[in-house]
Amino acid sequence: MAASLGLVSASIAAEPIQVIKPVQNVNLAQVELGKKLFFDPRLSISGFISCNSCHNLSMGGSDNLKTSIGHKWSQGPINAPTVLNSSLNLAQFWDGRAKDLKEQAGGPIANPGEMASNHTLAVDVLQSIPEYVREFQLVFGSDKVDIDKVTQAIAEFEKTLVTPNSRFDLWLLGKKDALTQEELAGYNLFKSSGCTSCHNGSAVGGNSFQKMGVVKPYKTSNKAEGLFAVTGKDADRFKFKVPTLRNVELTYPYFHDGEAETLTEAVDVMGRLQLGKKFSEKENAQIVAFLKTLTGEQPSFLMPILPPSTDKTPRSKPFD
Amino acid sequence: MAASLGLVSASIAAEPIQVIKPVQNVNLAQVELGKKLFFDPRLSISGFISCNSCHNLSMGGSDNLKTSIGHKWSQGPINAPTVLNSSLNLAQFWDGRAKDLKEQAGGPIANPGEMASNHTLAVDVLQSIPEYVREFQLVFGSDKVDIDKVTQAIAEFEKTLVTPNSRFDLWLLGKKDALTQEELAGYNLFKSSGCTSCHNGSAVGGNSFQKMGVVKPYKTSNKAEGLFAVTGKDADRFKFKVPTLRNVELTYPYFHDGEAETLTEAVDVMGRLQLGKKFSEKENAQIVAFLKTLTGEQPSFLMPILPPSTDKTPRSKPFD
Repeated sequence: MAASLGLVSASIAAEPIQVIKPVQNVNLAQVELGKKLFFDPRLSISGFISCNSCHNLSMGGSDNLKTSIGHKWSQGPINAPTVLNSSLNLAQFWDGRAKDLKEQAGGPIANPGEMASNHTLAVDVLQSIPEYVREFQLVFGSDKVDIDKVTQAIAEFEKTLVTPNSRFDLWLLGKKDALTQEELAGYNLFKSSGCTSCHNGSAVGGNSFQKMGVVKPYKTSNKAEGLFAVTGKDADRFKFKVPTLRNVELTYPYFHDGEAETLTEAVDVMGRLQLGKKFSEKENAQIVAFLKTLTGEQPSFLMPILPPSTDKTPRSKPFD
Repeated sequence: MAASLGLVSASIAAEPIQVIKPVQNVNLAQVELGKKLFFDPRLSISGFISCNSCHNLSMGGSDNLKTSIGHKWSQGPINAPTVLNSSLNLAQFWDGRAKDLKEQAGGPIANPGEMASNHTLAVDVLQSIPEYVREFQLVFGSDKVDIDKVTQAIAEFEKTLVTPNSRFDLWLLGKKDALTQEELAGYNLFKSSGCTSCHNGSAVGGNSFQKMGVVKPYKTSNKAEGLFAVTGKDADRFKFKVPTLRNVELTYPYFHDGEAETLTEAVDVMGRLQLGKKFSEKENAQIVAFLKTLTGEQPSFLMPILPPSTDKTPRSKPFD
């Protein structure tokens, strides 16, 4: 028994993908407050768009749109990345411009094409609602709401959005019948073809920036330039954060421009452009079968009930 | 003890408002399917708008906007009524044009200014998703999805959205310290002023159509004509379904045009225009205090996880 466990440990250690660990070490009071804020559309100027609008936790933490819909139906510039397992990313946004979840959370609130509010107004809204003020007091020991506390709470909630116990993770943990022969063949092909040079670690991605179009250039009408927008270095042009492949079955469409509608298409493009390899139909299907084993347990929680605005709360302005 | 219970029953029977009863007699399998459909934005052409967008169960089953935001940010013609306790309404929509929740549920899906899809497309989307098809099979004994089953399931879920155990209901049930003196004074004023001629029953409204502007005409730029649009009878012009006052603290702003931002304003306008009575500041505050005791237990459920689209699912078209 001890010997067999030792073997399992050795085989896990040898794999380029590691299991997703369940949530540990969160401030549960901040999580509960952050959950409300994540679902509260009053953080947007319209009163209609919440974090959950584009990172919908009923739909893999994404909106399943090519690019997102923002204030007044603005067409977003880029595909909304999933919020699931985003705590495992080396940085946030496709271009990594936010160093962590807390820094990220402030962005969309004040982005004119997304929630179109500003931090002062968002804080004023919350400060006008006694139930929120009491909760901030309880959680942070101060009834003074500020954007730092708001984004801290949202980030803490987002840390809970990990998806352990996918079939692939059960397999990694030693349940050898958790995968079918086809899925296993897909995984072996995924490794032997070089996919794991970028898609590795517990998030199967999210831990490096890589150029989109390594072997052949990627053609797109999307204007995003990736890491270049942050560093200004020519070498960083079209380098994007490698997306996590966890729950990739749920987070269609694919790529930073959302141009790949299906996993089949995404695998084909990745093979040709990043690896110089044309997967056969059978190989492609095997890899897709493997990718679908990365769907983990989705976050399960009670739909939050938001405290009502008061007569003093600045009113939402959807049509101004 | 028996005598005291008898007294309580008598006092309940004499009140114009009755308690909200907990959910009884629902088909739980339909409820679970309907909950998913209620939250599924793929019933809209954009893939962005679900039933919950305007009847947000985190916010009193409403969107807290004057009028709603629909497809491509269309400005809706009327204030979104709460879905909470809507099973108690004599008919659905402000003008009563749908006889029940099932008939109502089909409306917004196909309304160009709301979800902007159509019943054929909505059904095609669901039929392309094996997890949905299996659930329809399980729930209805047929794997053929159709709009009748879709709206039936949504309506069944909506039947569960009742809000029992408000403080006012606890008082009705005999817990005499459930209300403060001010709240009780407000309730007595609410009855003696005539508010209960329309706002009565377990939903405190929802059971009749009444003219907006009985004593004095109601001035609004809103074009809705109420029941007249359904019956074509001149006498029905500006007759609207009396809204429920259950959870009214959560369902701001008020009236069919959403023009009253606060309960104070709504009570003042109702008093003057419907009853010919100008409430003093103190009286108004008492009635508002009473109205806030009508906030019941909000529906509590796990956020549903939606089955993913497949390669065959018609794609959402947010920007076409």
